[in-house]
Amino acid sequence: MLRRHPTVVIAPDSFKGSLTAAEVAAAMAEGVRSALGPDTVIIECPLADGGEGTLDALLANWHAVPRFLDTTDAVGRARTARYGISNDGVVGIIEAAEANGLPQVSDIPLQPMRADSYGVGVIAHTLLDQGVGEIVLCIGGSASTDGGTGFLRALGMRFLDSDGREVEPGGAGLASIASVDDSQLHPRARHVRWRVATDVDNPLCGSSGAAAVFGPQKGATPQNVIDLDAGLEHLARIIRAATGIDIAQHPGAGAAGGMPACLVPLLGAELTPGARLVSDVVGLRDLCAHADVVLTGEGSFDSQSLRGKVVRGVLDVTPPSCPVVVIAGTVQLSAAEIASSGVVSAFSIAKGPSSLTDMVANSAYLVREVSAQIGGLLGAALGARE
Amino acid sequence: MLRRHPTVVIAPDSFKGSLTAAEVAAAMAEGVRSALGPDTVIIECPLADGGEGTLDALLANWHAVPRFLDTTDAVGRARTARYGISNDGVVGIIEAAEANGLPQVSDIPLQPMRADSYGVGVIAHTLLDQGVGEIVLCIGGSASTDGGTGFLRALGMRFLDSDGREVEPGGAGLASIASVDDSQLHPRARHVRWRVATDVDNPLCGSSGAAAVFGPQKGATPQNVIDLDAGLEHLARIIRAATGIDIAQHPGAGAAGGMPACLVPLLGAELTPGARLVSDVVGLRDLCAHADVVLTGEGSFDSQSLRGKVVRGVLDVTPPSCPVVVIAGTVQLSAAEIASSGVVSAFSIAKGPSSLTDMVANSAYLVREVSAQIGGLLGAALGARE
Repeated sequence: MLRRHPTVVIAPDSFKGSLTAAEVAAAMAEGVRSALGPDTVIIECPLADGGEGTLDALLANWHAVPRFLDTTDAVGRARTARYGISNDGVVGIIEAAEANGLPQVSDIPLQPMRADSYGVGVIAHTLLDQGVGEIVLCIGGSASTDGGTGFLRALGMRFLDSDGREVEPGGAGLASIASVDDSQLHPRARHVRWRVATDVDNPLCGSSGAAAVFGPQKGATPQNVIDLDAGLEHLARIIRAATGIDIAQHPGAGAAGGMPACLVPLLGAELTPGARLVSDVVGLRDLCAHADVVLTGEGSFDSQSLRGKVVRGVLDVTPPSCPVVVIAGTVQLSAAEIASSGVVSAFSIAKGPSSLTDMVANSAYLVREVSAQIGGLLGAALGARE
Repeated sequence: MLRRHPTVVIAPDSFKGSLTAAEVAAAMAEGVRSALGPDTVIIECPLADGGEGTLDALLANWHAVPRFLDTTDAVGRARTARYGISNDGVVGIIEAAEANGLPQVSDIPLQPMRADSYGVGVIAHTLLDQGVGEIVLCIGGSASTDGGTGFLRALGMRFLDSDGREVEPGGAGLASIASVDDSQLHPRARHVRWRVATDVDNPLCGSSGAAAVFGPQKGATPQNVIDLDAGLEHLARIIRAATGIDIAQHPGAGAAGGMPACLVPLLGAELTPGARLVSDVVGLRDLCAHADVVLTGEGSFDSQSLRGKVVRGVLDVTPPSCPVVVIAGTVQLSAAEIASSGVVSAFSIAKGPSSLTDMVANSAYLVREVSAQIGGLLGAALGARE
């Protein structure tokens, strides 16, 4: 039931290349408030899909600032990475690409066999030390194809060859692994909840696997792909022998150079679509349960939006009686597609003919403007009821 | 009070260079109906501001077809002009530019001294013959500066020189007028209501007058401007002597080459801002009295829109409790300006970055699309009440 002073939940994704989710939410809130008045209850809940911007979105929800840690990039060079902890100390958030991201190593020739996820594990180690109960790990954009062995090594796990020596780092060492030694694993590593945001369904190995599909963009030659794929398959066999869990064909295990190959069987990590994971962590379902309107949005509202992206996540947790309105830089969907999506309406921020460049340059203003128009229409509908 | 199946009045201007008002209204109606369902009561009321498109808009309201009449252009050449009569036969509509328009004589050198409004009067003569009780005369876009003498001549009025001979046509003859003879005036000319749509406040003469301001665009040289201005001033004196009415400083008398100079004193014509006149003729106030929402729009929603244009006219007749929503190709006004205008919200038809050319090419589709979004939001607000 709409009320005179409605509760508006504002839960957008970032506008990629233009505004963070928090900036979008702030602009939406300002616009809506200007139209509906200062008594409007507005809940800003910036979202993300588990990719770039997820750390920022969660920090904004927590009203927390990023923390910084000296760790290493995908080839072992010193690097300072950002991460976050919720203000209650319960949840830690890692954006893996802060450490092992591809852009971080693009200044030198790519090293697809050497690159590893060790630097990401260093952040996780710190989170464990700080006593969090849950670690959210966003693993997209990685430069490594190491099956997550680097990550686990940073937590104390040892991957040994047949001579009992630690194998070399990165995908290059996978084929030599003969056993796994968890005797020095961080004591809290198996006592926290690990939640991994994935946006791909690729299996660990084979023609749709981590090496074949994502290896080339990380610099892998055709021979590297063959070697990495064989290494990941070997790793899966070793882990199955150790844990009884067959990760090889697990959907999503091929994400981020196969990081789930270690995370799922060895740490009990859950793989979750990124948008849903973020929505869970911020408690979006509870917020939307009491909303009169939910405003969401993203740079481009298209068919992707309805498949695992933020708008889908919002629709999934909003009661059917509560209208969901989308604001986007570009509305690619037709009115008919929008209507069948469950979104009640979608508006572009464009105020007329304009170039992408101009729209990006003015995006905060434009989001505010169209939000005020939507607020105006809602306010009129509410006022007319009285 | 909003109802589950609301009454939506759709009252847009044309999108200049793109869609007629009737086409805009049809697209809006289709979009709204797609969102609110077939039981929605939709009243299409295409509007105009008294300029180009007014004839088409009134015909669309009347569900009438245009009529055609062989008349003359501003320099006396044969020309077929369109005009209209309401289906009940009561109201006739003339768009003067159909006969004496500037574009009609742009194929030859402009003749600012010769051009007259005779061809427009021929249409009026026919309307009088056909028994209408009211003639709506839209006088913008004329090529003539004859003070309306040509128009009156076509109705039988004679403008005589000191020898009792008819003066030459156009502005050139004005200075020679010594008397006016109405003995052969059409017998019904003073028994109908004449309503003239004007959009300018210019007086007949002087530096803001018909000759000085509008003469040059009709081809008048500086000397022509001086002669035409003197001619109009002379005409006003003659008419004042004959009728006691001083039209010289009447606001709006300088419109369309001074046509009101004859129309007001000699026929008792009323000058009315075009948008209000159209709104009156179609009975917009009565339609809006029972509306739950009024949708209007135009190509560019800017500060002009709020001063005598269609949107202003819609706001003026809509009860304060009924929201007015604007759809425009371009929304030039800021959210703050929109809010203070009385419009509850304004949306561009743009779905993202796009060129004017693309928007014009797809304007009917885009109007339909954004109307569906507005309908969706209204529908959600209504549904949520139940």
